[in-house]
Amino acid sequence: MAANENRPTEDMLIERYFAPLAGPGGLRLRDDAALIDVPDDSELVTTVDMVVAGVHFFADDPADAIAEKALGVNLSDLAAKGAEPLGFLLALALPTDWNEAWLAAFSGGLGKVAARYGCALLGGNTTRTKGPLVISITAFGRVPRHQMVPRTGAKPGDLIAVTGSIGDAALGLKIRSAPELDWINGLNEGDFAFLLDRYLRPKPRTAFAMALRTNAHAAMDVSDGLIGDLAKMLRASGVSGTLKIEDVPLSPAAHSAIALHPVLLTDAVTGGDDYEILFTFAPERLEAIRELAKDAGLPVTVIGRVKEGHEPLSISHKGETFLTRTGSYSHF
Amino acid sequence: MAANENRPTEDMLIERYFAPLAGPGGLRLRDDAALIDVPDDSELVTTVDMVVAGVHFFADDPADAIAEKALGVNLSDLAAKGAEPLGFLLALALPTDWNEAWLAAFSGGLGKVAARYGCALLGGNTTRTKGPLVISITAFGRVPRHQMVPRTGAKPGDLIAVTGSIGDAALGLKIRSAPELDWINGLNEGDFAFLLDRYLRPKPRTAFAMALRTNAHAAMDVSDGLIGDLAKMLRASGVSGTLKIEDVPLSPAAHSAIALHPVLLTDAVTGGDDYEILFTFAPERLEAIRELAKDAGLPVTVIGRVKEGHEPLSISHKGETFLTRTGSYSHF
Repeated sequence: MAANENRPTEDMLIERYFAPLAGPGGLRLRDDAALIDVPDDSELVTTVDMVVAGVHFFADDPADAIAEKALGVNLSDLAAKGAEPLGFLLALALPTDWNEAWLAAFSGGLGKVAARYGCALLGGNTTRTKGPLVISITAFGRVPRHQMVPRTGAKPGDLIAVTGSIGDAALGLKIRSAPELDWINGLNEGDFAFLLDRYLRPKPRTAFAMALRTNAHAAMDVSDGLIGDLAKMLRASGVSGTLKIEDVPLSPAAHSAIALHPVLLTDAVTGGDDYEILFTFAPERLEAIRELAKDAGLPVTVIGRVKEGHEPLSISHKGETFLTRTGSYSHF
Repeated sequence: MAANENRPTEDMLIERYFAPLAGPGGLRLRDDAALIDVPDDSELVTTVDMVVAGVHFFADDPADAIAEKALGVNLSDLAAKGAEPLGFLLALALPTDWNEAWLAAFSGGLGKVAARYGCALLGGNTTRTKGPLVISITAFGRVPRHQMVPRTGAKPGDLIAVTGSIGDAALGLKIRSAPELDWINGLNEGDFAFLLDRYLRPKPRTAFAMALRTNAHAAMDVSDGLIGDLAKMLRASGVSGTLKIEDVPLSPAAHSAIALHPVLLTDAVTGGDDYEILFTFAPERLEAIRELAKDAGLPVTVIGRVKEGHEPLSISHKGETFLTRTGSYSHF
C-alpha cells in the first residue's frame, strides 16, 4: 500500500490535471472539502452516478468520451429536476494500467464538458484499484425553492413527452459491441458515426431545465430505457398511462437502422443511455413547452398520456399491443 | 448487461436496504436527485471519499465495519472543517459475489453510523463491477458563513495539536495483515482488539467541530500519516514548523506494541487511517480548547509549533533529529 515511486503522487496528479478545472468553491483542490454557497432563494439539488469500465462504458473508449459520459449522466439528472448546474465532485479509482496520456485526455474531456455546462470541479479523491476504472461523480445544481421537478408528480390527463430522439445510444452500443453485424454494415457512414457518438457522448438537456421547472408535473431522465423508465415514473406517481410506440421520436439514423433490421425498434424503446428527458404536463401547456423547446434548440414529442389507476402502462404500436420481455435495461 | 433475473433489482435493493436510512431530503430515494435545504446563515461543506476493497479495507472485513469506515472517513473530513453533518449520498459498485446477508449487514452498519452522527442517507446509485467492491460516499455538512476551517490558515507562532491518539490504526493494519508477527503475539488481548478496532472502525471527531470553528487557524484530518499530513498542511499554509515525536499522543495499546518492537514508533507517526484532527491555533486559545475538548470527551495534545519560512518540517525525538523515508502513507 505504498506509493509507486516511479509515478506522480496523488497531489501531483491533482495539481497537474484537476486543479486547472477547479471553480472558486473548490479552494484550488487543496483542501479536504469544498464550499458551496447556495443563494438564499434557492435549494440545492444533488445527485451521484458511478460508472464502471465494462458496465457503463468500454475500458478502451476514448478517455475524453469516458469523462464526457461520467459527467454528462449526472448533468442529465440535474436537468431532469429543473436544476442549473453549480459544480461537481469527482472520485476516481484508477486501474493499474493507467498512464499520464490517458489522464491528460480524461481531464481534458472533463474540463470541456464542465466549461460547456458551467459546472466547475469542486473537489475529489483519487485512489487506485486492482479492478476496472471506476468514476463516481456527484453533481450539484440549484432550483428556486420548492421548484424541483419530482419524479412523482404525474397527474391523470397529463400528456407524456420526451426531448430529442430515443434509441440512438442503444443502437450505438450494438455498433460498439458487435460492429460485424449485417445491419451495421448496411448503415451509411454518417448514421454509423451518429449512433456511436450518441452512445459515447450523452448530451445532457440542461437547456431545457427552466422549461421543465415552469411547466412539468413530473420528470426524469431516460437512462434505463424509455419503456422501463416511463413505467417507473407512472408507478412512482401512483398513476397509469398509455404509450404510442409509433409516436416515439427516432433520429434519421435510427430509422435507417430499423429499416435494415426491424427488431431494433424494440431495442430502441427499451435500451438504455438515451439521456433524454421524459416528462408529463397539463395539455394546455403544450404550446408554451413547444416555444421553450424551440428556444432550447431541442425537439419535444408527445408520446402518450397519463391515466388514473394502477394497471401497468399500456403500450401500443399502430393500434396493436406492443410487448417487451422486460422493458428496462439495467446496469445492475 | 442485462439484469440477473435470480437477484433482486436495484430498485428492490434500494427499497429493502437503503430507503429505511433515508432522511427527509432523500425523497425516500425514489427520485433521481436529492434536495438539500441549506439554512440562510450557513454554507454547505461537501467532501467525497472513495474506498476500494484491497486498498482501504479487506474484502473480508465485517460488512458493518466496511460501512462504518466508508462513512466515517467522510465524517472525519467534515469534522476537520468545523462542519456539522447534514447527510450523505452513497454510490456502490458491488462485485459479482455479493449476497443479501452481506448487504443487510452493510446497510445496518451504515444506518448505525448515520444515526449516531445525525447524517441521513439522501440518495445514491448502485451498480455492479467485475472488480473489487467500491464505495464512494459524498457527505454534506454546514458551517456558519465564512467559518469553515481551512487547511491553509496556519500562522507562525501557532501551536500544533492533535485529538485522540496517533498510530493505532497503522498498528491495527499490521495486525490485520500479518497476525503471526512476534510483537503481535506479545500483545495482550485487550490491546490487540483495541488496535484492530481502531483500524476497522474510525471514530470521526464530529464532537470537536465547533471547538475548531471558533479556535483553530488551520485543520485537516490525519488520514495519510501524521508526519506527511502535517508537512502538507504547513506547505499549504506557506509556513514551516517543528514536531516533537515524544509529545505525539499514543494509546496504552500503542505504547505496549512499541515497547515490544521499537521500530513501530515510525509506523505510528507515518502510517495512515488515524482519522484524528490535526490543527493549529494561537497559543492564547489553549485553555479554551482544552475546556472544549473536555466537553467533547476527547484528549487534545500539543505536538509542535508553526514557524515562519519554507524549510521542511523539523522533526525531533528527545532532542535528536527524527528521520523517516517518506513520511506519508498513500492510498494511491
